[in-house]
Amino acid sequence: MSSFEPSDHPHRRYNPLLGEWVLVSPHRAKRPWQGQQDEPDQSVLPAYDESCYLCPGNTRVNGEVNPSYQGTFVFTNDFAALQPDTPASANSDPLFRYQSEQGESRVICFSPDHSKTLPLLNDEEREQVVNCWMAQTAELSQQYTWVQVFENKGAMMGCSNPHPHGQVWAQRHLPTQALKKAANFSDYYATHQRSLLLDYAEREAALDERVVCINDDWLVVVPYWAAWPFETLLLPRFAVSSLAGISASQAASLAQIVGEITTRYDNLFTTSFPYSMGWHSQPFDGEAHPEWGLHAHFFPPLLRSASVRKFMVGYEMMAEAQRDLTPEQAAERLKVLSTTHYKKAGQ
Amino acid sequence: MSSFEPSDHPHRRYNPLLGEWVLVSPHRAKRPWQGQQDEPDQSVLPAYDESCYLCPGNTRVNGEVNPSYQGTFVFTNDFAALQPDTPASANSDPLFRYQSEQGESRVICFSPDHSKTLPLLNDEEREQVVNCWMAQTAELSQQYTWVQVFENKGAMMGCSNPHPHGQVWAQRHLPTQALKKAANFSDYYATHQRSLLLDYAEREAALDERVVCINDDWLVVVPYWAAWPFETLLLPRFAVSSLAGISASQAASLAQIVGEITTRYDNLFTTSFPYSMGWHSQPFDGEAHPEWGLHAHFFPPLLRSASVRKFMVGYEMMAEAQRDLTPEQAAERLKVLSTTHYKKAGQ
Ligand SMILES: O=P(O)(O)O[C@H]1O[C@H](CO)[C@@H](O)[C@H](O)[C@H]1O
Ligand SMILES: O=P(O)(O)O[C@H]1O[C@H](CO)[C@@H](O)[C@H](O)[C@H]1O
Repeated sequence: MSSFEPSDHPHRRYNPLLGEWVLVSPHRAKRPWQGQQDEPDQSVLPAYDESCYLCPGNTRVNGEVNPSYQGTFVFTNDFAALQPDTPASANSDPLFRYQSEQGESRVICFSPDHSKTLPLLNDEEREQVVNCWMAQTAELSQQYTWVQVFENKGAMMGCSNPHPHGQVWAQRHLPTQALKKAANFSDYYATHQRSLLLDYAEREAALDERVVCINDDWLVVVPYWAAWPFETLLLPRFAVSSLAGISASQAASLAQIVGEITTRYDNLFTTSFPYSMGWHSQPFDGEAHPEWGLHAHFFPPLLRSASVRKFMVGYEMMAEAQRDLTPEQAAERLKVLSTTHYKKAGQ
Repeated sequence: MSSFEPSDHPHRRYNPLLGEWVLVSPHRAKRPWQGQQDEPDQSVLPAYDESCYLCPGNTRVNGEVNPSYQGTFVFTNDFAALQPDTPASANSDPLFRYQSEQGESRVICFSPDHSKTLPLLNDEEREQVVNCWMAQTAELSQQYTWVQVFENKGAMMGCSNPHPHGQVWAQRHLPTQALKKAANFSDYYATHQRSLLLDYAEREAALDERVVCINDDWLVVVPYWAAWPFETLLLPRFAVSSLAGISASQAASLAQIVGEITTRYDNLFTTSFPYSMGWHSQPFDGEAHPEWGLHAHFFPPLLRSASVRKFMVGYEMMAEAQRDLTPEQAAERLKVLSTTHYKKAGQ
């Protein structure tokens, strides 16, 4: 029997954040494809769209009029999944267990310009987005235990409006993913007296095998346990547990690296790269959380081109996530790309 | 403050199989939609397609020729994600942990007729599919700890060929979902000396609030903790832990109820209803598993019509699953539908 070769042989990798495994099948990338072809998004959008409910000055479905905003603009989701005044209620039947939930869902417009995306903004504009994420986290963490900043980008990711925007949902209870991470970060800290993610960032920076972008404060890596083909993890290179805890200069370097990774993404298949991204700050329960490292995930669905995506279905839903190229191969693909956006090149 | 009303107020429900929560936001179903519209699949397929690699007599990509099969036909996936002869290898670095995996991936053709689907087969033909699932589980469980029978139906669910087929993947290690269920079933059994799912089936049958179909041996319920809008759980009403352990008459009644639930699904939006479905038999580790109840999941993505799906993105990926109508409302919608398939009505 030949010896094990991770770039060729099926194997499983362990995600120490979630305590879950992913099946890696490197040889599968060669199979033919007869399934759905999503259309690449080559649309050119106007800077202002009178039918867009996020553009400045337009009227939303509930009759409210957006201000003529500059920079970012935040408002409560007109169809919020969470509401602050839900009556308290819970039970403990092991088979029919529920708890009522209190929270808020807000929309964050990144720019008044309907035609932009994070990589097409300039660094100053992107810094305003970072500052807005920080301010929302600082504000909502006064009242709620969990503050979920995220962005769904592209129709493929269920985004119902191309105007550049993200969301922030805050809630009383820790959601499922947060509960898993809290347990795993605590276990690691109890054993090593170090933050898992700070250790991980240091080791990835030293190995330099999966790092896609790096500056003095931040790094972006295709994590060893990535599930989505071009999934990345954005990590601080300093100890910080919340978006509300970073300095002005760290916010500026964050805006820079967010611009770089999203530009590389767009350049990979010369398309506006769809993804869901989100920030995980610590639980806001009044305690210090030295075990918790602030981080952001990018989960992009594309696999082979602007129109061929990875489907997390069947085996993935029933058994565990599965991927067809190694994280090292994905990092290599992203690393060689230009940091100038293809729409800006030659300008 | 008014009192808590589960059909109106945001709340979380606990999935005791996975130990995870789902956020239920019943009022959200009212929001407008401007995002991607998937095309309904109204295509009429021929009974034989010369370009289909699953039709009888056709040549596959690796040069093998399919036999002129009747009933079901099983072969090893030409691009198998799992392989039996992977060299053994593992490590224990907490941040870069892996283990090589051994296994098999097979394709199961449900019928030689390219134009059929599970609900369009007759009961005898569907019984052949059930018997094939049983035989594959019996065979592969001799060698592997986990046997994952599943079907991806529809382009929306990443199915690369409309010919009616499913798959079976078997592997040495328990995958992530199996590990979670094994722990939760064992905990419940330790406390109650009963199988969680047998208790659950009894209580759902008695409540009759979320049951969609029922016969003497089986029932289909929208589980209390359903994440997908019209997700269902197919449960035996007798103690059995594996597909390999059901009798001939139980296989016949299973074929009947699989026909009924998939017919109701197609009738909901008058379309070939996409889904991923899969069976969870016990871990095959040589032990008895009285705590483990055999069950199947159906995870269908459609939300409001043949073209409007639920996206599990953003908040769902970062925090936890979220749904916009209650499981009780979904069960009610499915329950009132005809058990005669819309394509067979009037024949
Ligand atoms: O094996 P298929 O049908 O080519 O592929 C499909 O099912 C697999 C197993 O669920 C998934 O890994 C793929 O993403 C999906 O497209
Ligand atoms: O809130 P939106 O953008 O209308 O909706 C989108 O994001 C939500 C939060 O991730 C998801 O629940 C929806 O399925 C998705 O379509």
